[in-house]
Amino acid sequence: MTIRIGILGYGNLGRGVECAIRQNPDLQLAAVFTRRNPESVKILTENVPVYSVDEAQAHKDEIDVLILCGGSATDLPTQTPAFAQWFNVVDSFDTHATIPAHFDAVDAVAQKNGKVALISAGWDPGMFSLNRLYANAVLPCGADYTFWGKGVSQGHSDAIRRIECVKDARQYTIPVDAALEAVRSGSQPNLSTREKHTRECFVVAEEGADLARIENEIKTMPNYFADYDTTVHFISEEELKKNHNGIPHGGFVIRTGKTGWNEENTHVIEYSLKLDSNPEFTSSVIAAYARAVYRLAQKGDFGCKTVFDIAPALLSAQSPEELRAHML
Amino acid sequence: MTIRIGILGYGNLGRGVECAIRQNPDLQLAAVFTRRNPESVKILTENVPVYSVDEAQAHKDEIDVLILCGGSATDLPTQTPAFAQWFNVVDSFDTHATIPAHFDAVDAVAQKNGKVALISAGWDPGMFSLNRLYANAVLPCGADYTFWGKGVSQGHSDAIRRIECVKDARQYTIPVDAALEAVRSGSQPNLSTREKHTRECFVVAEEGADLARIENEIKTMPNYFADYDTTVHFISEEELKKNHNGIPHGGFVIRTGKTGWNEENTHVIEYSLKLDSNPEFTSSVIAAYARAVYRLAQKGDFGCKTVFDIAPALLSAQSPEELRAHML
Repeated sequence: MTIRIGILGYGNLGRGVECAIRQNPDLQLAAVFTRRNPESVKILTENVPVYSVDEAQAHKDEIDVLILCGGSATDLPTQTPAFAQWFNVVDSFDTHATIPAHFDAVDAVAQKNGKVALISAGWDPGMFSLNRLYANAVLPCGADYTFWGKGVSQGHSDAIRRIECVKDARQYTIPVDAALEAVRSGSQPNLSTREKHTRECFVVAEEGADLARIENEIKTMPNYFADYDTTVHFISEEELKKNHNGIPHGGFVIRTGKTGWNEENTHVIEYSLKLDSNPEFTSSVIAAYARAVYRLAQKGDFGCKTVFDIAPALLSAQSPEELRAHML
Repeated sequence: MTIRIGILGYGNLGRGVECAIRQNPDLQLAAVFTRRNPESVKILTENVPVYSVDEAQAHKDEIDVLILCGGSATDLPTQTPAFAQWFNVVDSFDTHATIPAHFDAVDAVAQKNGKVALISAGWDPGMFSLNRLYANAVLPCGADYTFWGKGVSQGHSDAIRRIECVKDARQYTIPVDAALEAVRSGSQPNLSTREKHTRECFVVAEEGADLARIENEIKTMPNYFADYDTTVHFISEEELKKNHNGIPHGGFVIRTGKTGWNEENTHVIEYSLKLDSNPEFTSSVIAAYARAVYRLAQKGDFGCKTVFDIAPALLSAQSPEELRAHML
């Protein structure tokens, strides 16, 4: 049994999903849908059609699960409910504050049309969320900590690029080692924003630009940098391309808690990711959840779901018997 | 809605479950069942009855979930199927090799009697198994590593105690730092048993015992020590009591894998536990799964389950809406 996957949106994430499908023999790429001219889009997989997004509905019977690879700011809030009319879908909606509203909008459509929609797959939200939930369920008396990095923050890099006389920029979010160690001690410290992460910026300025002004504008930018210890390095365009071309990321989810009749024992649960490619890892998570979505649809378990609703066994290509024999 | 929990077997694990119930306001200890004389068993919770295990069936309507706190060697293989006739049950069966047989025996009884039975809750099997499954589903092209420790191995400590002229002993399993670092590099090394863990033994010998003989018997013991670099320290009974009285444990589950069209990117997923009390942490996992078992029983989803079959949201006292708003 092969699960036929459609990809809607062929950027970094869409290409990542295409690569992930190649690693999972039970998944098969059936079609790519794009908002660009389909003839201008060259994909990696041979003999798979690229269609205009406007033609998607016509191909609904050829796709078991459609993976929506747009952005959370403007694409997914409309795309996920729209396509859940016709398809079982997975998205990676990652605006934490509006997840409940997105869930409700998608659930209404999915329920009405007998489709399964899994939202917010990826690593945060996603694998990090799962680890927060498991750790909280197991250690109800404790404290949670999430650290991000070392990794490239796209939003912060963009914010630097909008400064006058900046040609290009890359911003790394870096967790502070001393804060990580304090958390791992089990002492449940209260940590300020500044104590948890630092920000390191690599900036290509236009020739003759006032570097001191640019540095000051970065370091004092509200929300993005003002609350952090920020380092700014001015480098050449060549150096940026050579040394800062990747999209690495990662982070840590740690919960420490107490057990015992008088809470006399301390426990530390730590989950961490170190990722060479943020979009490819996100895509790999999405591919596993597409398998689960297909299985739920087969069972008739319709509606909107999150990673919290998916029994782990549904993610694996192995049978329940194999999993119990080899992975438990 | 309070979930009424019964504890069968009041040793370290049973006491740990009692402590965990105290931390979860939706769980309530309803009764303890013991193979000892009930009058000789003093529990920590006030106004909760202690009954003989022979009376358990008579109290089946007072218990929503019965937690079986016996051992995997001889207790659980018979207890779990026996009590799944009358109760929804949770056990921590941890003999990995015979989990499939145990599952089948328990499933037959649970299905027939309309009960839910969750086996092998804890951390390995348990939280470690979950992390193996999630990481394998997300990174199909990769390698798995599990390290245990630093922690006390009860089985290895017992093996030392059986040596002639040994009064008492404590054995620590310790992961080798260099092996952990090699794994975290993503190089997918092949590691021998000896390269992954060392064993450190603290031994109280009888007066006048031949210490060289004891040390040699430990270090050459097949299965337990012969394949490891083992260190033996002879200490006094007082020192053992003072410095080695706890039951700490923990470990690491690491998967590294590749993504990308040509597998050009490497990712590291790491989960680790650092536990002051092995039985109390195991008990805390069991308590969360007891909540899930109760909810499955309410839905009529009967039969034997493992951690792989339980949607994460079922473990939490929070509602699905709260979880999506605050933990996703």
